[in-house]
Formats: sequence, structure tokens, C-alpha cells
Amino acid sequence: MAWLRPAWPRGAPLRWRPCGPAWARRAPEPRKAPGAAPRAAAGPWPPQGGRGLRTASPGLGEVPLTSERYRVRRLPFSRLSPRDVAFFERLMPGRAVTDPEELEPFNVDWLKSVRGCSKLLLKPQTAAEVSQVLRYCSERNLAVNPQGGNTGLVGGSVPVFDEIILSTVLMSRIISFDTVSGILVCQAGCILEKLNEYLEERGFIMPLDLGAKGSCHIGGNVATNAGGLRLLRYGSLRGTVLGLEVVLADGTVLDCLASLRKDNTGYDLKQLFIGSEGTLGVITAVSILCPQKPKAVNLAFLGCQNFSQVLETFTTCRAMLGEILSAYEFMDEKCMELVEKHLKLSCPVRDSHFYVLIETSGSNSTHDEEKLNSFLEQAMASGLVTDGTVATDDKKIKMLWSLRERITEALTHDGCVYKYDISLPVGKLYDLVTDMRARLGQSAKNVVGYGHLGDGNLHLNITAESYSHSLLDAIEPFVYEWTARYNGSISAEHGLGFKKKQFIQYSKPSEAVFLMQRFKAMLDPKGILNPYKTLPSSS
Amino acid sequence: MAWLRPAWPRGAPLRWRPCGPAWARRAPEPRKAPGAAPRAAAGPWPPQGGRGLRTASPGLGEVPLTSERYRVRRLPFSRLSPRDVAFFERLMPGRAVTDPEELEPFNVDWLKSVRGCSKLLLKPQTAAEVSQVLRYCSERNLAVNPQGGNTGLVGGSVPVFDEIILSTVLMSRIISFDTVSGILVCQAGCILEKLNEYLEERGFIMPLDLGAKGSCHIGGNVATNAGGLRLLRYGSLRGTVLGLEVVLADGTVLDCLASLRKDNTGYDLKQLFIGSEGTLGVITAVSILCPQKPKAVNLAFLGCQNFSQVLETFTTCRAMLGEILSAYEFMDEKCMELVEKHLKLSCPVRDSHFYVLIETSGSNSTHDEEKLNSFLEQAMASGLVTDGTVATDDKKIKMLWSLRERITEALTHDGCVYKYDISLPVGKLYDLVTDMRARLGQSAKNVVGYGHLGDGNLHLNITAESYSHSLLDAIEPFVYEWTARYNGSISAEHGLGFKKKQFIQYSKPSEAVFLMQRFKAMLDPKGILNPYKTLPSSS
Repeated sequence: MAWLRPAWPRGAPLRWRPCGPAWARRAPEPRKAPGAAPRAAAGPWPPQGGRGLRTASPGLGEVPLTSERYRVRRLPFSRLSPRDVAFFERLMPGRAVTDPEELEPFNVDWLKSVRGCSKLLLKPQTAAEVSQVLRYCSERNLAVNPQGGNTGLVGGSVPVFDEIILSTVLMSRIISFDTVSGILVCQAGCILEKLNEYLEERGFIMPLDLGAKGSCHIGGNVATNAGGLRLLRYGSLRGTVLGLEVVLADGTVLDCLASLRKDNTGYDLKQLFIGSEGTLGVITAVSILCPQKPKAVNLAFLGCQNFSQVLETFTTCRAMLGEILSAYEFMDEKCMELVEKHLKLSCPVRDSHFYVLIETSGSNSTHDEEKLNSFLEQAMASGLVTDGTVATDDKKIKMLWSLRERITEALTHDGCVYKYDISLPVGKLYDLVTDMRARLGQSAKNVVGYGHLGDGNLHLNITAESYSHSLLDAIEPFVYEWTARYNGSISAEHGLGFKKKQFIQYSKPSEAVFLMQRFKAMLDPKGILNPYKTLPSSS
Repeated sequence: MAWLRPAWPRGAPLRWRPCGPAWARRAPEPRKAPGAAPRAAAGPWPPQGGRGLRTASPGLGEVPLTSERYRVRRLPFSRLSPRDVAFFERLMPGRAVTDPEELEPFNVDWLKSVRGCSKLLLKPQTAAEVSQVLRYCSERNLAVNPQGGNTGLVGGSVPVFDEIILSTVLMSRIISFDTVSGILVCQAGCILEKLNEYLEERGFIMPLDLGAKGSCHIGGNVATNAGGLRLLRYGSLRGTVLGLEVVLADGTVLDCLASLRKDNTGYDLKQLFIGSEGTLGVITAVSILCPQKPKAVNLAFLGCQNFSQVLETFTTCRAMLGEILSAYEFMDEKCMELVEKHLKLSCPVRDSHFYVLIETSGSNSTHDEEKLNSFLEQAMASGLVTDGTVATDDKKIKMLWSLRERITEALTHDGCVYKYDISLPVGKLYDLVTDMRARLGQSAKNVVGYGHLGDGNLHLNITAESYSHSLLDAIEPFVYEWTARYNGSISAEHGLGFKKKQFIQYSKPSEAVFLMQRFKAMLDPKGILNPYKTLPSSS
């Protein structure tokens, strides 16, 4: 997923390579290409209020404190005392970290846009330890920031103030895998890519795939209901996650770690924790249904002259490719201009207003190629597609994917970037880009649209020479109002975290927000779990 | 789904034909084959306690009152007054039914095993009307029984006492269908089969299919998290339902009717209502993601000599058929004996200890047949399968499906039937049948096992000459304890309803049940929504 890649420039990403920040894997510094910092970093960073997600690359020490930049008021949690630290050191010797240098990368988010000032990092190994931590924190009224791989994009994974960081980094045990059912049970801190490697050796794959796979934890994926590249084919985590073990704010261990495809005994409690961003409980283990590893992968990269053709091509290919369609991505000509200009990639397809990337994954390469060829013949004959190229070998597949995946990187070279991750009814998807372009006129440098068309997920990006309040005001709340008018979602995959919680009302009615607040109050009456996140404050 | 078929004997069912009770479609009498009533009806009906789900066919008037049979104490809800009736008649003229005869079929469940004594049936047409009803009932402390097609098997869909029946029968409007995204939005009272017909005309299908499709309402399907024939291929409703409109107990309309594949703005409230059996809110509209209609369907019916081979055949076929596998059902030789003996069906496959039904659904018949043939060659060559037959034409496909689907019917001819719907880790699935057979010895007539192996779902059925307390005591709680020992579910698809709510602790830890009770208390503090169902009482 392009949007999950780090903002700083780097070498050509390979689709199946990890691209998490190096420091999340215990290296001291974030990955950074040699040479000049991205242009965006030259401007005043970060913009006041930080509403537009900007890309920049300051050192960790330069990231301003969230509490100061956003002028957040600390809630009346207790302050960590030496006695508290002593308790945790007794509970998990050597795994209660207070060294400021060691703590630093856990206090700053992946995009280096928000920064907390936690004084304590805990690394439990079991649900029982998590339970003891939370029971103690609950009694002492100490706030806790659960953290997985810290690859989130909305500031949900790092503390805002001095919350204790509860990391799943040492909870990385695979508990079981059943090769008949394809059901994997593992601890929350397992890294997505490692799980996928483990499964591939056994003829299976994880049902989700993200750019951040090399760093992100499965527990964090579930806690944020991560989407990603395989959603079109294998559906969301709401369907593939079969069970969870969750520790509640008061330390209660909720064992709903079923490994069953069907279970209709009462309310499906686990669903409430999927996508709750650590605000309702701490996920400590996951049971997940894994699909077979596909034996054949094909890719087609096509040009269309207008967005109607992009839509009709989708309808046609879905009908003709059926069960083997695994990705349908689109990008507009502005995106292609940027990857050509800034990254020197070359487009193998004749100039078009839109480009489409279609991937198939199946169990028989001959059959899959035949299906793809029939579709392509039909699409060309009917004039839906004006030009295109097909790849079956790994190298060309990666090259074509890079045109789509490196858009984010190209954008960072184009200037200051305002990023939006929107769900819309698929027919309206591109209208937002067109309307925004018309609205901003010369005040923006580029307004581009690309994304997971098959999932109705648009990545709208706006670049400008430098940050400006007036440009931000022209974009917001217009972009949210527009999205709300068409019953879209202002956060398709990223979640709300710290940065977007105040915009929830654009996608959810007040009755729903009120109910969410009641659930939060019921499950975490003191509000110690990931405070300042996901929901607007009740007051 | 065999288990959703009516218990009374009837003509050979066609797989795609409706088989709901005729009276649910406004005809006066349940469908009944001419001639003798099923043997089970000759015994004393129903057995005291009714724990074993027995099949029988008394007239509606003969079904004993649930409250008397199960000795339930009425909760202190208000009694319906003439003033209440007048209010509802003003609210929905002609749609507030008090005629006892017209009410009768709404008071008795599909299996005719439980019976309420409601004096009022309401037929709202809109969520606004449902809201007004619930607000009034909440204020007046009147209990309400939400009802869809009344095809449930655990007594969840009919009143226990005099609850007001709130039927979705007149909420049958299709609100929208998007042929690009495949997203259907419709009112809760749409009949599953009608929706499927509507979609098939547009090249799509519903992601679920049930034996009760001709009667069941999509709102009821969602409220009970129905499984069914297509779950192996298209996943559960938790993944395919994209949005819900729900009216809460106090009349609040919760509009979460999103038509988006991705939406990460806050907690996913709709999930709590999926599978809550009408105890947390009344579902009034559904948004659901619908798959393409497959262009080719093939079927293989195979014989295996032991259950290990059934499992290995599943693993092999899943690997070789991959994306086109749409059903993997199994039945043991006892099942085959019963369908041959009682229904005079003939098995096209040489005598085997187990039989397997494999269905493929795909977009290219030539490819699908090739894949199926390769798999069959491999399965025969490796000795996994000893004999088999394949069908591609509709008639033979239906004939082969009937061997599996008519097991329930054959069982009703065999005597008094005790039915269990169990989820287990797939490797343990048949051990329960073997253990039960050994345990019961001569006290049972037949102990048979069949079901959706691909979903880990076993239908365990025990027949006897007549009902006996001692046999029931030999079966229960053994069957639940056995299931719990292997972390199975005592209700894979049926839900808990009225009949199974007291067994929840075999599949859910006390912390989970306690949390469910807290959710119930929060959302429905007076407990007016579908009382006596799903959860054990708090006290």
C-alpha cells in the first residue's frame, strides 16, 4: 500500500519487501536515502494544527511534542512514581525500560509527525503479564498506550503525554497452525511478514498484505482493522479474524480465541476490539483464517481515456476474471507524470488520462492467462482500453507495480503534500479529485487521485510549493463535507487515531458516536487505555 | 441446508426451490405430504424439557405453550391494554393485528416446538414506525418479539409469553443496487430468495444461501448471523454485511447503513447486532456486498474408506481446486443407508464408509472441469477416493445434492430424532460421532454424522424408537462437554435463541457472558427486546 510507505525518498521499493521504519526493528535511525531531504522538509514543519498530513523527515529529536503543537490538555491521570517503576521492574525484570534514548523511537510515530513523552516502556511476554500491568494501572489511574509495530499514520500508536507504552514486541509466538483448516493462532506481536513467510512454507498466505508488513504487528493490524492489498480478494479482517484474546482495562482476560469458522453462541465480542485502536482493550492473541497460496500471478497495466471507462473496465474484468481477480488499482495521468518526472520510471503504455493495474491470483497459470487474455481482447475490442501491457514474470510484475506503489514517493518530491484517505461509492470516486482541482485552481501545484478502485478507496493528494494556511482552509473541511455528502468515509483504512478523531462526525451520525462513547465508558471507565484517541471527548 | 428444512416429509426438494413453511407466506396450513405423519409425531410430543431437538408435525393448535412446557416465569413487563392497542392502530391502521387466528402462525415456530401467546402483531413499513413502536413500548415497559421469516430452529423468533410481535413482513423494499460495486441495500423484510432472483437478473448472487431461502428475511439472516451453503466460498455475514440500520430499544434509529467496503471511523457498531438475535436492537435495513453469479457449476460425489481420507481429500481438493471450490460436504454410511432405505434414493457410488460432495463454482466451465478432473485423477491415483461420479448438468447436480440435503428428511422417518449443530476443529469433527455411538450402544437406533466439513460444522443426529429421558441424559450434557473439551461451539449456525441459551457456558467463558449481559443491560435496560432469549438471565 503506497500510503503506508515512509515519506522519505528511498530506493525502488520491491513489492514484497518490508518497508517499515528501520528503527522499529531496533536500528538507531530511520531509513533515509542519501542526499537532500525531501522538499517538504524545507518548509516550516509541521504546519500548525497539522490537519493536512504532510510528509517530512526531521530527526526524532526535532519532532515537536504533540501536547504542545496541538495544545492538548493532559487528563488527570496519575504521574508515574518511582514506586510504580519498581513494581513493573519486579513484574518483568529487564523488560521495564526507562532509558530515555531507548524510549525515544517508541514516543515518535512512523511519519515523525507526533511525539509523546512517556517515561516507561513495558514489554510483556504473556497475556497474564498484560493483565497484571493493566490491573495495576487501572488501580493507580495510570494511562497506557498500547503499541504494536508503530506504523500507524494517524498518530494512534504513540503517547500524547506520558502514557506508559505497552509494547507487544516480545509477544511474537506462533501458537498453532492447522494445515487442514488454514487457521493460524499467534500472539499479537508477531510481525505480519514473518507470519506470511511461515505460512508460505506451508502453502498458505496471510489474508492481508501491507507496505508496512516488515514492521507491523498482527495485533496492531487487528486493532486498527488494517485493509491493504488483499482485501479485494480475501475480504476484511472482520471476516477472517476468527478469535481474539483481549485484556480489558481492569485486567480481565477475555478469552475469545476460538479457531472455528462458525460460532453463533452469543454476541461476537471480538468485533468491538477489531478497529478500536487500543482504546477498549489490549489484543494479546489472534486466531485468523488463512487462504491458500496462489500458484499463479498475472498482471495487466492498461490505459483508459476517461473515468467511466475505468469503471466499465472494472465491471467487465470482474465478470470475466471472476474468482481470480486479486487487485484493481487506478491512477490518473498526473500521478504518472510525477513518477516519470521525479523517479524516472517509464510508462510502458501510450499516454492516457487514466491507468489501471489488474492483478490475478489463481491455482492454474494456463487457465489464468487464458482468462486474462479473453478479457483483454474484449476490453480492447470494445474500446474501453486504448493500450496495455501484460506481465507474468516476477521482474516485470514488480516493475509495473512500482508505477502504482511509488506514487507516494514521487509526491514527496513534488512539494508539500496534503494527504486524504477516502472511501466513496465507486461511481463517485474520481469526482472528488475533479472538484478539488477546480476548487483549488492555481493555489495548488498538483491535485492527484489514485487508489484501490476495487475497494472504493481513493487516495487524494494535493501538492504545493510550501505549506499555507489558506490552502489548508480551502481543502478542509471541504474534503470532509464532500465525502459526507456522498455517504463516504473520511478514513477508509487509516483509522482515526489522534489526528482524525475530531472529524468522525463527517462519517458517523451523532447517535453512533454517542453509543461508541458509552461503550468506551463501560469498558474503560477511567479512560486509561490509549487516551486522546479515536473518539472525540465526551464533553 | 438440510437442517433448515421443515421436519415434515415432502416431495424431493430441489436445491434452488423455496422450502420455508407455506404459512409464513400467508397460506393457512403448513406444507405436509399426503399420507402418514412422520413417525416421530407418533411419540409423546414434545419431550419434557425439549432439550433434544425433535422433529414432529402437530397442528399449530396442538403445540403446547412454551411458558408451561418449560415452566418459565414471566418477567414483570406491562400487560397490553386496550389503550395500547388503540395507540398502535392509530400509528399503523390495518397493520396492528389482534385477530387470534391471524396471530397463530406468528406465535409458533417453524418446527412447531415452541409457542407464545402474543395478542398483538405489528407490521411496520419503515424504520420510523419501528422507532415509534419501540419508544412507546420502552416507555410502557411492553416486551417486544422482533420477527423475520420465522424460520429459526432454536425458538428465538416467537414470543415466550405475550410479547408484541414486531414483524418485518412489510419491510420488503430494495433501496438500491450498484452494479459496479455489487452492493445491495434493502429493507430487513426482503425474502432471501427474492433478493437472489433480483440479483441473478443483474449477474450477481446473494453471498448466502439457505434451505429456508423462500421464507427467511434478510434482516433475520443478519440478526442470527446465518451460515449456509455459500459460507465456504464467500465468508460469513460479518465480512459481507457492510452496513445496518438498527432501531434501539428506546426508539433511537442508528443509521450505520454504509455502502462502503472500507470504513475505519470508530467502532464497528453494526457487528454487535449481527447475530444478537433481536435482543439488542431491531434491524430495519441491510447493506450487503454481493458476489458475481458463477457461470459454471460442477459437482463430484465421492466415496472414502475412512475419515482421515475425507480430511486428506479436503486438503488436496482445496489445493488443486483453489478459488473455484464452493462446497465440501460429507456424510457417513449410516446417512446413506437412511436416505436409501426411507427415501428410496440410490447412491451412484460404490459402498463406502464416507461420502463427500464437492462443488465448484467458477467463471469458465472448461477451466473448472479441467481442474476438477486433475484433482479427481490425483485423488483416485493416490487411493484417497475409492469411487466417484461427476455432474455438470443441472439435473444430475440436483440429484447428487439431494443425497446430502435430504438426510434430515430421511432421519424423520427413522424415529425420534435428537439433533445437534456443532463446530469443531476439523480434525476432531467425526470423533464426536464415534464416541457418541460407542457411548450410546444399543440405546440409540442410529447415530449419524454429516455436515459442512469445509466449515468445520458437524450435524450430529441420534435416532431412537421413541423419546426417552434416559437416552437424553446419556446424550446431554455429554455432547456439550465433549464439544467444550475441544474448544468447539455448541451452536455453529443456529444461534442460542430460547432453547440453547442455558448452554452458552460450554462455548464462552464466564467473562464473555458477563460482558454480553452488560451490553444487553446498556442497550436495553428494561430488557424489552426479545426477552428470555440468547443470554442466561443475570440472576
